[in-house]
Amino acid sequence: MAEVRSQSEKIPVAVLGATGSVGQRFVQLLDNHPWFQVVALTGSDRTVGQLYGQSCRWVLAEAMPAWAAALPVIPSDPALLCAANPPVRAVFSALQADIAKNIELEMAQAGLAVFSNASSYRRDPTVPLLLPEVNAEHAGLVDAQREQRGWSGLIATNPNCTSTGLTIALKALQDAFGLRRIFAVSLQALSGAGYPGVPSLDIVDNVIPFIGGEEEKVEWEPRKMLGRFENDQVTLAPVVISAHTNRVAVSDGHIVCVSIELERPAEIVTVQQALSDYQAPAASRDLPSAPRPPIIVRYETDRPQPRLDRNLGLGMTTVVGRVRPDPLFHVRMVVLSHNTIRGAAGGSIYNAELLVNLGYLK
Amino acid sequence: MAEVRSQSEKIPVAVLGATGSVGQRFVQLLDNHPWFQVVALTGSDRTVGQLYGQSCRWVLAEAMPAWAAALPVIPSDPALLCAANPPVRAVFSALQADIAKNIELEMAQAGLAVFSNASSYRRDPTVPLLLPEVNAEHAGLVDAQREQRGWSGLIATNPNCTSTGLTIALKALQDAFGLRRIFAVSLQALSGAGYPGVPSLDIVDNVIPFIGGEEEKVEWEPRKMLGRFENDQVTLAPVVISAHTNRVAVSDGHIVCVSIELERPAEIVTVQQALSDYQAPAASRDLPSAPRPPIIVRYETDRPQPRLDRNLGLGMTTVVGRVRPDPLFHVRMVVLSHNTIRGAAGGSIYNAELLVNLGYLK
Amino acid sequence: MAEVRSQSEKIPVAVLGATGSVGQRFVQLLDNHPWFQVVALTGSDRTVGQLYGQSCRWVLAEAMPAWAAALPVIPSDPALLCAANPPVRAVFSALQADIAKNIELEMAQAGLAVFSNASSYRRDPTVPLLLPEVNAEHAGLVDAQREQRGWSGLIATNPNCTSTGLTIALKALQDAFGLRRIFAVSLQALSGAGYPGVPSLDIVDNVIPFIGGEEEKVEWEPRKMLGRFENDQVTLAPVVISAHTNRVAVSDGHIVCVSIELERPAEIVTVQQALSDYQAPAASRDLPSAPRPPIIVRYETDRPQPRLDRNLGLGMTTVVGRVRPDPLFHVRMVVLSHNTIRGAAGGSIYNAELLVNLGYLK
Amino acid sequence: MAEVRSQSEKIPVAVLGATGSVGQRFVQLLDNHPWFQVVALTGSDRTVGQLYGQSCRWVLAEAMPAWAAALPVIPSDPALLCAANPPVRAVFSALQADIAKNIELEMAQAGLAVFSNASSYRRDPTVPLLLPEVNAEHAGLVDAQREQRGWSGLIATNPNCTSTGLTIALKALQDAFGLRRIFAVSLQALSGAGYPGVPSLDIVDNVIPFIGGEEEKVEWEPRKMLGRFENDQVTLAPVVISAHTNRVAVSDGHIVCVSIELERPAEIVTVQQALSDYQAPAASRDLPSAPRPPIIVRYETDRPQPRLDRNLGLGMTTVVGRVRPDPLFHVRMVVLSHNTIRGAAGGSIYNAELLVNLGYLK
Repeated sequence: MAEVRSQSEKIPVAVLGATGSVGQRFVQLLDNHPWFQVVALTGSDRTVGQLYGQSCRWVLAEAMPAWAAALPVIPSDPALLCAANPPVRAVFSALQADIAKNIELEMAQAGLAVFSNASSYRRDPTVPLLLPEVNAEHAGLVDAQREQRGWSGLIATNPNCTSTGLTIALKALQDAFGLRRIFAVSLQALSGAGYPGVPSLDIVDNVIPFIGGEEEKVEWEPRKMLGRFENDQVTLAPVVISAHTNRVAVSDGHIVCVSIELERPAEIVTVQQALSDYQAPAASRDLPSAPRPPIIVRYETDRPQPRLDRNLGLGMTTVVGRVRPDPLFHVRMVVLSHNTIRGAAGGSIYNAELLVNLGYLK
Repeated sequence: MAEVRSQSEKIPVAVLGATGSVGQRFVQLLDNHPWFQVVALTGSDRTVGQLYGQSCRWVLAEAMPAWAAALPVIPSDPALLCAANPPVRAVFSALQADIAKNIELEMAQAGLAVFSNASSYRRDPTVPLLLPEVNAEHAGLVDAQREQRGWSGLIATNPNCTSTGLTIALKALQDAFGLRRIFAVSLQALSGAGYPGVPSLDIVDNVIPFIGGEEEKVEWEPRKMLGRFENDQVTLAPVVISAHTNRVAVSDGHIVCVSIELERPAEIVTVQQALSDYQAPAASRDLPSAPRPPIIVRYETDRPQPRLDRNLGLGMTTVVGRVRPDPLFHVRMVVLSHNTIRGAAGGSIYNAELLVNLGYLK
Repeated sequence: MAEVRSQSEKIPVAVLGATGSVGQRFVQLLDNHPWFQVVALTGSDRTVGQLYGQSCRWVLAEAMPAWAAALPVIPSDPALLCAANPPVRAVFSALQADIAKNIELEMAQAGLAVFSNASSYRRDPTVPLLLPEVNAEHAGLVDAQREQRGWSGLIATNPNCTSTGLTIALKALQDAFGLRRIFAVSLQALSGAGYPGVPSLDIVDNVIPFIGGEEEKVEWEPRKMLGRFENDQVTLAPVVISAHTNRVAVSDGHIVCVSIELERPAEIVTVQQALSDYQAPAASRDLPSAPRPPIIVRYETDRPQPRLDRNLGLGMTTVVGRVRPDPLFHVRMVVLSHNTIRGAAGGSIYNAELLVNLGYLK
Repeated sequence: MAEVRSQSEKIPVAVLGATGSVGQRFVQLLDNHPWFQVVALTGSDRTVGQLYGQSCRWVLAEAMPAWAAALPVIPSDPALLCAANPPVRAVFSALQADIAKNIELEMAQAGLAVFSNASSYRRDPTVPLLLPEVNAEHAGLVDAQREQRGWSGLIATNPNCTSTGLTIALKALQDAFGLRRIFAVSLQALSGAGYPGVPSLDIVDNVIPFIGGEEEKVEWEPRKMLGRFENDQVTLAPVVISAHTNRVAVSDGHIVCVSIELERPAEIVTVQQALSDYQAPAASRDLPSAPRPPIIVRYETDRPQPRLDRNLGLGMTTVVGRVRPDPLFHVRMVVLSHNTIRGAAGGSIYNAELLVNLGYLK
């Protein structure tokens, strides 16, 4: 497994937007990380100047790490981060898309490696949209990015939380059978909307069959990640996706019901085998946050379920169940992924580990 | 609107399986019905001999009618019902499929009109599977049924609750544009599983992506209801449906996310218009339980929602929203239907009203 | 029952803060009110200038009345209300306490009758804190208020939603047996926190054992309402209350578990009888919004329950159950009241009806 | 910390009623236990003869241990357990009270040490009702029990789940200040009712203000545990408790709102200190399942909360918050305890560890 660096060898990092729900997940997952050490936490004007322990309304069941509670919240200013002691070398961004756009750019220009959850740069042709289990080779876009932008920093993004588990399952099928058309209907957890996010009155005894901007992301992002990387650019995969996205009264864990048309139809057991056997590319396989295994296939009639299965593989594993024939396409299934771990903070950290491994972040 | 009969002219009816959750809904909806009067309530051995008010754990927010509380629970025995004073002429069956099979047969053989929620006879080629807004003409199957079976009674069924709203919306599109292929993913309410039904530990902070036997029903039942009635038989509609069914933490109201391939593609506004304009067949339009209107189209981005929209049209109206283009097929939308009113007890009562109107029940 | 006024005789009223959740309840309950006609709706700067139907995110299951959707949202400015055609004579305030303080004062100074849900003036010795079933005679404070303030308007308040049902039940016991000490622990619905109110992540699979400022209100407000009105002032009732307040995942309906020390201990059946028999004072009994009956006693072991009992008496009736001996004090029970109907908007309207009946509002 | 025994030195144990929700918790918590090894699992007639992995509908988020899945389910027959290889020496009983009564007796007569969650023997004067943090010395009752019953086995019980956290908090206060009178109102989790337990329709958008038999337990059990052990018997503590018990939509974690009359009133900070400083008796302090620490005091205004705090101390720690003055008694607070870990299976295991430590189980 991955080596543990000594304290002095760890890479100093910051979390941007650390007081929000994804920011908190970054802080929690980076606690005792073998390669990274959090030395700075940034927040909005409302929280700057306070200690993190005072300003942050912590919403996770895991306790806030003591070192985090004692850090002051500072502005998301690259100069401050580069002047820290030790100087920050990478940032994990939990900023909202509208403010991420400028700040993440400034950070990369200042030479920092930016690992972003925001959607701002996902469609930028020189920015890798990364799932290390899926498209580690897309990290090569960073070379083009650095050349074009003329910076020593970098921006790497992870997909939106619903695309995450879906794309990992699809990748296993793409490799084995080829993909054509996909129907995907999500039942998404509340934490995907951040905090305060969805008002409780909107979800008690209810379902909200709409999430702003989400369907567009789910229909596009997998195509980039499943695309071919050649000549320093990514060609979108020629698959077509139709997505319906829904919010349900679940704290964590996104469910996606998927029907898939394959290029080369296969028996259900073969499909299950392809999912179970799927391995991350070599560069991604032994990283500290690598899901072990990448995909778990469940054979019970009624699994996966969010409350029971979302924490498999420490929340990094994609869980697939109900693999069965589809009357219209070839195969259908249910995919579960922990949306704030694999689908957000854990995914960004895994991306950073990959870029360390590939030498883009030192 | 429908006339109100005098007390002595009302048709005496019984509710079979009256203590369960659908049975309770029958009792509540038949309270003050203009055409029917409940004179008997049947239950299982456990409850027989007690007063309904004592034996029934009432789970509806509407109060139990006083007349129901005072009725004794009797066995589901056709002889008892026919010997009642006045003699029962029709029964509303909330029995479970396994026991419905024999009892409903005996009731029809005894000359009673059986309006059943159970799945036992839905696939019987001489039994109409009825949604009066959709296929009133299928009631004509009763003639074939009576001839073949040699009875003066009848069995008419309503579809499962998820097929109900889905089929009503599809019928409007079938009439206007023709139908080819349909993806349907449901988010179903707890009351659809009866009482006690789903254990609370299974659904708190959770989704169950499986409902036993449901997908098969949703893939087949609409085809019968949308089929052509000719020469005393129904030909299944040549549409193909793929269904994923899920249970969510909602008390009442099933949501279905639907993508539809039309024979004759149309603009979204035209599709919305076809849904809004849809009218029930003349024989079904002015019945006491007729939904007014059959379909409501919502134009907000995030509707319909179960808690807010399930009671539109007294729970009998089908609510459609988010009508928008589909990247794979032609159009997609969200359909909501109250599962224990339109999708169960209210639907059976509406069926009975239709058969009265057509002269099959007197 | 209460007479219905002709359209021209109805009292023109406005709803202040009409777009919030309590404001919406006012609009819904005032639809077709026999005495009042809503002619103006006010809102915050964000919504002013838009039509109510456009600016308001309606969260009730009952549909927004068409007349309300068509009204423009105007500022909470008494001059505008008095200049309306016809001029507004009374306002129902759903403003938050901090901004209610000034605006309600200005409204009363402009000669308007203010019926407020806000806590701003509840402790003012010249402002009646009214539950018409309980302390109709406290309306007499308006005379002192007008004299001291020198205005022709008035301010009348209703208590916080948890104090409402509790005080109504306590009043029946005070009259029959006298009261000494009370323990009250609430399980409060989400709608009590307004909209957006409680974030869903805070309440899914959870309880929040704290509601800011609520315990202080529950410990003081009943004492004023149960107090004696004499010589133009109210003397607080000499009871002591200890309150614990909790938020639970319920949409509407506050439950309060209460243990009570009586002055004159009584048998449980006598206590149940006193609750059942309780009648509102004559002046309050036949008003349009009067709960019929004021209190319902349930005898089942596990009632009242919010989902099943909150709408009894159109949401205006207080429901009491589980009346049983208390090992420490004398009697204990469970009280349920619909918090946005009886406990907020419906209560204010009932107050206004009382002041019309007593001649304070014409 | 506690030593780890070699495999051959571990005490062979069985779980009775292993397929239920508490039985599952036993299996999960005994996985890799340093002192005990599960060698047998018993179940009802329905499950006997199947493998545990097949017959048990596992409802925990933690995965079923592989060794458990491979064990056959056998009847709860002491002869079978004693004939096992190695022979079972202790049983953890998750049986329901009605069947526990006979079976647990037979087990003890057969020389087995019985650690029971059932209420059957809690009131037996020779059976210790144990919380090791509270009344380790009550274990001495086993001597009297063995003498009177003439068996080498033993029965030791843990209290009902709501009494557990409450009594631990009360013990700290009893030691420091003495106790007189207590009001306790619970908001209890669904898992406390077992599986399938509470139907979901009963709890969605709802609260059930009643739990059969629970209030009687909460009013009596703490008195035995807080009582004095002298001359081989326990004298009930002279405190009086009034309990209201409620079911809420929470998966795990019971909240209790408590108001307490002390013998020697104290400042709030002193009370908080007494809770924080509380230490288990020496015999219980270093056992494998000992909560570390026994009590955590939270100082935020709105904690403890079930979802956020129930797993503190691996679910064994009692969490107390909102310590504040009480207007009627002296102090009030909110107590949280994980009901299936500290309040059920974990508590029984902790009891067994204590009896090993004291030499009653070898």
